[in-house]
Amino acid sequence: MMNSEEKSLPEKLADDIVDYILREKLQPGDRLPNESILAETLGAGRSSLREAVKLLASRNIVTVRQGSGTYISSTPGMVEDPLGFTFIEDKKKLAEDLLEIRFLLEPSIAAKAAENASADDAEHILDLCAEAERLLEEGSDHTAKDIEFHTAIGMSSKNMVVPRLIPIINSSIPLFIDLTENVLSRETIDTHREIADAILSHDPVRAHDAMYLHLVYNRRRIHSV
Amino acid sequence: MMNSEEKSLPEKLADDIVDYILREKLQPGDRLPNESILAETLGAGRSSLREAVKLLASRNIVTVRQGSGTYISSTPGMVEDPLGFTFIEDKKKLAEDLLEIRFLLEPSIAAKAAENASADDAEHILDLCAEAERLLEEGSDHTAKDIEFHTAIGMSSKNMVVPRLIPIINSSIPLFIDLTENVLSRETIDTHREIADAILSHDPVRAHDAMYLHLVYNRRRIHSV
Repeated sequence: MMNSEEKSLPEKLADDIVDYILREKLQPGDRLPNESILAETLGAGRSSLREAVKLLASRNIVTVRQGSGTYISSTPGMVEDPLGFTFIEDKKKLAEDLLEIRFLLEPSIAAKAAENASADDAEHILDLCAEAERLLEEGSDHTAKDIEFHTAIGMSSKNMVVPRLIPIINSSIPLFIDLTENVLSRETIDTHREIADAILSHDPVRAHDAMYLHLVYNRRRIHSV
Repeated sequence: MMNSEEKSLPEKLADDIVDYILREKLQPGDRLPNESILAETLGAGRSSLREAVKLLASRNIVTVRQGSGTYISSTPGMVEDPLGFTFIEDKKKLAEDLLEIRFLLEPSIAAKAAENASADDAEHILDLCAEAERLLEEGSDHTAKDIEFHTAIGMSSKNMVVPRLIPIINSSIPLFIDLTENVLSRETIDTHREIADAILSHDPVRAHDAMYLHLVYNRRRIHSV
């Protein structure tokens, strides 16, 4: 998206730090060397280095903790709203199009989760299901819990791309809850529970179909708006 | 991903500028007001404002052209490697998992493209197909053209999420070309052409199947590595 000729010194230095992180195999939570050591290692001035670290922080590659140091972020490189949905004006069409993508992905992902979920995974999914249910029943905002539920299913599929993809696709959930004004839906609760049960009992076909049904109910509600 | 309490002044100001862009409905290519006007509008100091603009540039929301001004980017908010694949070590598993996602998405997207492509869309897809073919046949790097080809199909589906998603998913293409050492594949050329022809003749079933076959050949080649 950016040609290297157009890059400023701090931008080039940010790339060097990324290379350093990869070369040294630094993991989420690991600390970067302190400023003077890193400046020497990379042959850079300290003020350019500070600029470069700010750029990496804005891309969520590192997290700066004041007085403590600079650490590799927990999901390095995953930024908020990475597809720039903030800048799409037609939110109704966006919600429909996101739901269309969810139809393509989530039933098969639920099936893979039913195949691959560990006992801990399944228990975690059941917990999230119960919590979302409780929030929905008491009329509280269940958006975050809903996204956590679908992300946990994605994690259980053991496809390493899915947990990074699902929270983005599921940005349709807040849009959708907005559009439908958070009306309590019996079908949402019931299909959530059926998906969770199917994963717990390692039944991929039932997990697939329950997720499909869940999305059908969602689409009907969007279309009735 | 970041709580607002943890945000620095430039970060908060960057959020204010995003709100301003949305409120004023600025479009890709539009220019932001100059620094002094924007500073006054947002009630901000000029040095904080300059920091904030740098943060927005690193998130590809704006582009700073020296001596000309600050412009809204062509795809605002879409950053390079938004899912942080750079930081995943096991590239073989990553390529396989990305291909698995492509199987879920791309055949249906090709079918929708066959339904919705305009005459211009179809011609553009044919051109890209021919160019990728030429590069592949002369043994040149066809990665970028390949991603353009698949992105153009995504555009033609008229789902507004797809063109933002496809380039990310298709980061499997460079990984894959690396893994298979860019060996010329007759099947790749043939299935590319069949997909393009099916879209041109608005045949969704044939487009779906040709894309599926294309992915099957890709998966066989990864598995033979």
